[in-house]
Amino acid sequence: MKAFMDENFLLSTETAQKLFHNYAKDCPIIDYHCHLSPKEIWEDVHFENLTQVWLGGDHYKWRLMRCAGVDEKYITGNATDFEKFQAWCRVLGKAIGNPLYHWSHLELQRFFGWNGALSEKTCEEVWNHVNAKLQDPSFSARGLIERSNVAIVCTTDDPVDSLEYHEKLAADKSFSVTVLPAWRPDKATNIEKDTWADYIAQLSKVSGVEVTSFDALKKAISVRMDFFAAHGCRLSDHGLNYVVYAPASDEEVEAIFVKRLAGGKLTDEEVAKFKFAFLFFLCGEYTVRDWTSQLHYGCRRDNNLTMFAKMGPDTGFDCINNYTPADQTAAFLGACERAGHLPRTILYSLNPADNEMIDTICGCFQSSEAVSKIQHGSAWWFNDHFQGMTDQLTSLANLGYLAGFVGMLTDSRSFLSYPRHEYFRRILCRLLGEWVEDGRYPDDEALLGEIVRDICCGNARRYFRFEEKKI
Amino acid sequence: MKAFMDENFLLSTETAQKLFHNYAKDCPIIDYHCHLSPKEIWEDVHFENLTQVWLGGDHYKWRLMRCAGVDEKYITGNATDFEKFQAWCRVLGKAIGNPLYHWSHLELQRFFGWNGALSEKTCEEVWNHVNAKLQDPSFSARGLIERSNVAIVCTTDDPVDSLEYHEKLAADKSFSVTVLPAWRPDKATNIEKDTWADYIAQLSKVSGVEVTSFDALKKAISVRMDFFAAHGCRLSDHGLNYVVYAPASDEEVEAIFVKRLAGGKLTDEEVAKFKFAFLFFLCGEYTVRDWTSQLHYGCRRDNNLTMFAKMGPDTGFDCINNYTPADQTAAFLGACERAGHLPRTILYSLNPADNEMIDTICGCFQSSEAVSKIQHGSAWWFNDHFQGMTDQLTSLANLGYLAGFVGMLTDSRSFLSYPRHEYFRRILCRLLGEWVEDGRYPDDEALLGEIVRDICCGNARRYFRFEEKKI
Amino acid sequence: MKAFMDENFLLSTETAQKLFHNYAKDCPIIDYHCHLSPKEIWEDVHFENLTQVWLGGDHYKWRLMRCAGVDEKYITGNATDFEKFQAWCRVLGKAIGNPLYHWSHLELQRFFGWNGALSEKTCEEVWNHVNAKLQDPSFSARGLIERSNVAIVCTTDDPVDSLEYHEKLAADKSFSVTVLPAWRPDKATNIEKDTWADYIAQLSKVSGVEVTSFDALKKAISVRMDFFAAHGCRLSDHGLNYVVYAPASDEEVEAIFVKRLAGGKLTDEEVAKFKFAFLFFLCGEYTVRDWTSQLHYGCRRDNNLTMFAKMGPDTGFDCINNYTPADQTAAFLGACERAGHLPRTILYSLNPADNEMIDTICGCFQSSEAVSKIQHGSAWWFNDHFQGMTDQLTSLANLGYLAGFVGMLTDSRSFLSYPRHEYFRRILCRLLGEWVEDGRYPDDEALLGEIVRDICCGNARRYFRFEEKKI
Repeated sequence: MKAFMDENFLLSTETAQKLFHNYAKDCPIIDYHCHLSPKEIWEDVHFENLTQVWLGGDHYKWRLMRCAGVDEKYITGNATDFEKFQAWCRVLGKAIGNPLYHWSHLELQRFFGWNGALSEKTCEEVWNHVNAKLQDPSFSARGLIERSNVAIVCTTDDPVDSLEYHEKLAADKSFSVTVLPAWRPDKATNIEKDTWADYIAQLSKVSGVEVTSFDALKKAISVRMDFFAAHGCRLSDHGLNYVVYAPASDEEVEAIFVKRLAGGKLTDEEVAKFKFAFLFFLCGEYTVRDWTSQLHYGCRRDNNLTMFAKMGPDTGFDCINNYTPADQTAAFLGACERAGHLPRTILYSLNPADNEMIDTICGCFQSSEAVSKIQHGSAWWFNDHFQGMTDQLTSLANLGYLAGFVGMLTDSRSFLSYPRHEYFRRILCRLLGEWVEDGRYPDDEALLGEIVRDICCGNARRYFRFEEKKI
Repeated sequence: MKAFMDENFLLSTETAQKLFHNYAKDCPIIDYHCHLSPKEIWEDVHFENLTQVWLGGDHYKWRLMRCAGVDEKYITGNATDFEKFQAWCRVLGKAIGNPLYHWSHLELQRFFGWNGALSEKTCEEVWNHVNAKLQDPSFSARGLIERSNVAIVCTTDDPVDSLEYHEKLAADKSFSVTVLPAWRPDKATNIEKDTWADYIAQLSKVSGVEVTSFDALKKAISVRMDFFAAHGCRLSDHGLNYVVYAPASDEEVEAIFVKRLAGGKLTDEEVAKFKFAFLFFLCGEYTVRDWTSQLHYGCRRDNNLTMFAKMGPDTGFDCINNYTPADQTAAFLGACERAGHLPRTILYSLNPADNEMIDTICGCFQSSEAVSKIQHGSAWWFNDHFQGMTDQLTSLANLGYLAGFVGMLTDSRSFLSYPRHEYFRRILCRLLGEWVEDGRYPDDEALLGEIVRDICCGNARRYFRFEEKKI
Repeated sequence: MKAFMDENFLLSTETAQKLFHNYAKDCPIIDYHCHLSPKEIWEDVHFENLTQVWLGGDHYKWRLMRCAGVDEKYITGNATDFEKFQAWCRVLGKAIGNPLYHWSHLELQRFFGWNGALSEKTCEEVWNHVNAKLQDPSFSARGLIERSNVAIVCTTDDPVDSLEYHEKLAADKSFSVTVLPAWRPDKATNIEKDTWADYIAQLSKVSGVEVTSFDALKKAISVRMDFFAAHGCRLSDHGLNYVVYAPASDEEVEAIFVKRLAGGKLTDEEVAKFKFAFLFFLCGEYTVRDWTSQLHYGCRRDNNLTMFAKMGPDTGFDCINNYTPADQTAAFLGACERAGHLPRTILYSLNPADNEMIDTICGCFQSSEAVSKIQHGSAWWFNDHFQGMTDQLTSLANLGYLAGFVGMLTDSRSFLSYPRHEYFRRILCRLLGEWVEDGRYPDDEALLGEIVRDICCGNARRYFRFEEKKI
C-alpha cells in the first residue's frame, strides 16, 4: 500500500517518480487561463481565515456540499465562517474519489505544511493551524502566487475593461510575476441576452465608436483589441454553447444587428448567423495580432432558476451539454482556414465524450506556423480530475502529438489553486511512466525529460509568444 | 494468478477484501426496483428445473444465445428443457468477458453450492446437481428471496393494478420480506401508442373517474396514486425515450388530449407537449406524496419487427439510443424546481456516454431535503457489468458525492438475480480499495466501512423512506 | 520494467504470452478489408527506399507530421526522400503514446530485423539498414505480403472497375495468396456530389444498361454485382455519413433520380430518401448473393478546403463526426430484416462513443444464419490503437459474443501494414490474459486457445465464406 498523498502521490512507477521530481516539479507555471482578479493581485489582499480563502467564491466546493445535502445556510448563507468550515470538513472527509479531495489536501500541504487527512475529526486542528499561517503577511495574494513558482498569469477580461490594474501591475517593480489580460468578448457575442443592448452602449462609450451597425461593432472591437494588445494580451477566450457554422450575407447580418438593437427578438437562426459572423470576424483579428483563440463549449449554464435569481451566474448550477456538433466545429475552422485567417486555436469541450472527435478535428488544420497550431485543450472544469486528465492525454497521444501540448491551466478564481498544475504534472508523469515500464516507449530519460518539460512549460512559452516582465 | 471466482472474486487488494467481507457482504438487500411478479411471490412458485428458472423469461440470456448463432428453437422454441440448457451451456462456456458469465456462476455458487465452470463439458453435471436441489421446498420463490438476505423488494406496477397480491403479502405473517408496489404509468404516458385509448378506458373504470379530458386524467391518476400510497408505494418509474421539455398552455394540452381520444393522429410536437405536461404534473404529485421519481431513458425498444410480431415486448430486441438531449433534461428538472415541486429523482440513461452529463445535471438541483436528492442511477441494463459499474461509480465520485449514492438494484425478472447486488458490492469495494492502496484516500477503516455500508443499504433506507414490515 | 517492444510486447501476463505465442501468432492473416492496389500486387512493385514505402501515400503519418508543425515541403512537397525521412524520424521519436510509434517499430522489426528505437539519432542508421534490404527482390509487394503469412486479401473496388488485375492474379500460379475484389459503390450512392452524373454515364457504359431511371440503376448495379461475384467478391463496403432511414415511395425515388440526372439540386431530405432506397435495394442484392455488407460511418471528410483543393481526398484531413443516430441505424436494419433481406452486416462507427450503442443494435438482429451475423467491426482508423481496440473488444464482450468476432483488418494502403494484425492479436491476448489472471474466467487453455484462434482467423474464414485459391 502506498502512503496517503506523500511526495510520490500518483507516481506509480520509478520512471514516473524520476520524471516528476527531476523534470516536472520545478518548471515555472504558465497559467495562461484563469479568473483571478487583477485588482486583488494589485491590492495584494489578505485572508482572515481558511473559509474566506477556500469557500468564499469557490462554486466547485459549494456544489459538492449541496450534493451531500448541506443546507445553503452553511454554504453561502449566514452561518459563521467556522460553521461553514465544519460543514465543509464533514463533506470533504467522505468525498472519496472527488478531485476536490486531492486539490484541498495538496493546498494544505504545499501552502500550509499540513499533511494529515481533513475530516470532521481534524477540522478544528486545521482551522487553527491554517488561520495562524494566514496571519503572516507572506500569505497575501501575491505571496501565494510567488511561492507557487508562477511565471505568467493571464486573467480573463471584458473588452470594455480599463485594464487599470494590469497597467499598475506591469509598472510595479516589486512583483516579478507577469500578469497579462486575456480577451473575453462574451457579452458582445451573446446577442440574445437581455443585457446585450446595454453592453453595446457601454462599448460605444469606451471605444469611442458609435456602435449602431455590425460594421461599427467590428470597428469598436478592433479599437479595444489594439488597447488589449498594447497591454500584452496574447489570448482570447470564448464561452460558447457550441461552435456555430451559419454563414449569411453581410446584409443579413447587418439586418439582424439592427433588428436586435431596436429591441426586436431574434430567431434561433438569426442568433446563430450573428454569432458565426462575429466569431469569424474575430478570428481574422486574432490572426492579424498573432493571438491564440480559445473556444470553450459544451456547457449549459444557470440551470437552477431559483438559485440563479438569488445568486447570479457562476455559482455552481451549470452542467455538461451534449449538443456539440462536429459538423459545425469543423466547418467553422474550415471557413476560417479557407479565408486565410485561422488563428492558433485551442478547443475545449465540457463533454468528455468529445475527446477523440476534437483531436481529429485539430488534426485537419495543423500547419508549420506552430507546433500543434490547433490544440485540444486541457481537461476542463468538470473533467479536471485523474480520470478526465488521463483520458484527455491518452486521446491526444493516440490521435495527435502529445509532445506538442501546451498543457495545464487553472481556470480558477482562487489564489490557492496552483497545485492543480502539480496534480496535472503528476498524472502526466504517471501515464508516461506506465507506458515506458510497459515497454511501449524506450526508457530514454533525455527524450522523456524533454517531453515532460515541454508539456509543463516550454510549449506554452513558445506557443503563446508572451512578452515577459523583466525586472 | 487469482483463483477463478473464489471468495475474493474481484477483490484485487487487501483493502477491498476487508471492506467487502467486513462491511458489504452482510448488508441486507434493498431491491428498490425490479420486475418480479407479486403473484409468483404470493403463490411461492417452484421450478422444476434449471431451464425454467434460468431461461424461462430471461431476455439477457436469449440475446447472448442469438449473438452466438443459436437457433430460436433452442431459445424460446419447442426444444426440450434439457436441449435448451445444453445450447445455453455451449454458449456461456465461451462467453468470456460477458457479465452473464459472472452472474450465472455467482448464482450457481450462492444458491446451489456448485463452484465449477459451466460449459459444454459440465452441462450434465450442473443440470443434475441443480435440479435435485430445486426439488427441495426451500428453493421456492420466497425461499430464494429469503436466503438472499433481502429486506425490501419494490415491484413495478401499473396504475390500474389491483395490488391484490401486495395486499396479501403485506398481511402474511409467515413471510418477513417487505414487498411494496412501485408506480409505472407508461401506458398512460405513451399517448402515441395504438393501445392508449383502451388503457384510458380501463383507467376510467378502475379509478371511478370518467377520463374525457387531461384534467380528468390528472384526477384519475391522483386517485390511483392515493391507492398505491396506501399500499406503501414510495417510488415511481418512467420508461422514456428521453426526458422531454416542451411547455404548452393548458388549453393546448387539453386540445391534444381530446384530439387523440377522438382517434386523431398526433404530430411529434403534440406528443412531446402531452408527455411534458403529464410528467410535469406527476412530479408535482410525487413531491406531495414524498415519493422518489425514477426516469429511465436512452433506450430504443422492439427494433426487430418480425420478432416483435411473434413475441411482443421485452424479449431481447432493444438497444441503446443516443438521442438524450442534456438541454431538455436540464430544462425539465429546472421547470419542476422553479414550480417548487421537484421530487427526489434518479436519472438513468442507457447510454454510458451520458454518465458525466448526468452527474453534472444532478449537481444543479441538489438541496438539503436529502443527501444527493437528485441521483445518478446505478449502471442500468446493458451497463450492468464490471466496466459499466466502474464507470458509473467513477463518474459519480468525480462529479458528485459517491458516499451519498443509493446503490444497486436488480431490475430483474428472475428470483435468482440477487447476486447482482454482490457483484456490485465487489466492484465497489475493488474500486475503493484501489484508490486507498494507491494513496488517493486514507486507509481509515471506520470511514471507509461507513461509506461502504451506506452505499450498500443505509443510503437507500434513508432516501426512500420505506415503511418496513414488522413481524 | 518490461523491455522495449520485445517478443512479449503488450503481453502483460503469462497467460497472455501463452495465448499469443501458442495460438495467435501463427494464424494466417485474413485481411478482409484493405485499400491495396491490385495493379501494384500484380506488377509486384519494388520500393527504392523507406520514404517511398512508408511515407509515399500514408496520410496517417502525414497527419502526425503536420500536428508536430512540420512544413508541407517535408511531408508531401519537394524535399528529398532523405529529408522527408529525417523529418519523420524527428517527429516519430517523440510521438509517445501514438499508435504510429508501435506500428512503425513493428514494421522495422518484422520486415527489416531492426530492433532499436527510431529517432533523430538513429535516423541515418535505419535509412541505410532498411534501404539495403529493400534492394533484395524478395522485398517486393508480393514478397512483403507472403512473408506476412497472409492467406486472403480483399481490396476495395468500384463497380465500374474492370477487375483486370484480379483476373490476372487469380490465374497466376506463382502467387499463392488469394486476392479478391470487394464492392464499394460510394460513387453511385453519393447523388449530391458534382461528379455523380458523370459516374452514372460511366456505369451505363460499363454495364451496358442505359441508366436513365432508378430502376435502370438497379439493373446496371445488378449486372456489375454478378461480374464481381464471378471474380470471387464476398463483401461490400459503404462509406456513409451515417446510416440513413428515410423511406419513400418508388415514385418519389424515381422523381428524385430524374431530377438529379437532369442537373437539379436536391434537398437534404431528397438525398436521404435516395440513399435509403439505394442501400435498402443493395442489402437485398447482398442477401441474394450471400455477401457481407460493411457499413462505415461517423466520418466527416475533406475538412481542410485549401488542402483538398491541392491534394484531393484521403490525404489526412478527415475527422470523427458525432452525428450517428441510433434511431436511424436501428430502423434501417429493422426495415431490411422485415423485408427478409438483411445480409450479414458489419457496423463500424468512427466515433468511439458509439461502441456500446452499436453492440446493442447488433444484438437485435442476430440469427442462426451465422455466428454473430451482425458484427461490431474492429476498432477503425482513428480508433486503431491500444485504447481503441481494448474499448471495442471490451464493449463487444460485455454486450455481445466476443468469441464470435471476425477480428482485425488493416484498412491500409501500405504493403507494410500487416503487423497491425499482430498488434491487434497482442492486445486481444493481453485483455484475455488479464481477465483470466484476475479470476474472471477459468484458466482453461483449450477453451482460450480456441477462442483466440477463432478471433484471429477461424471466424473470418467461416463468416465470409471465401473461395480460396488452390495451387
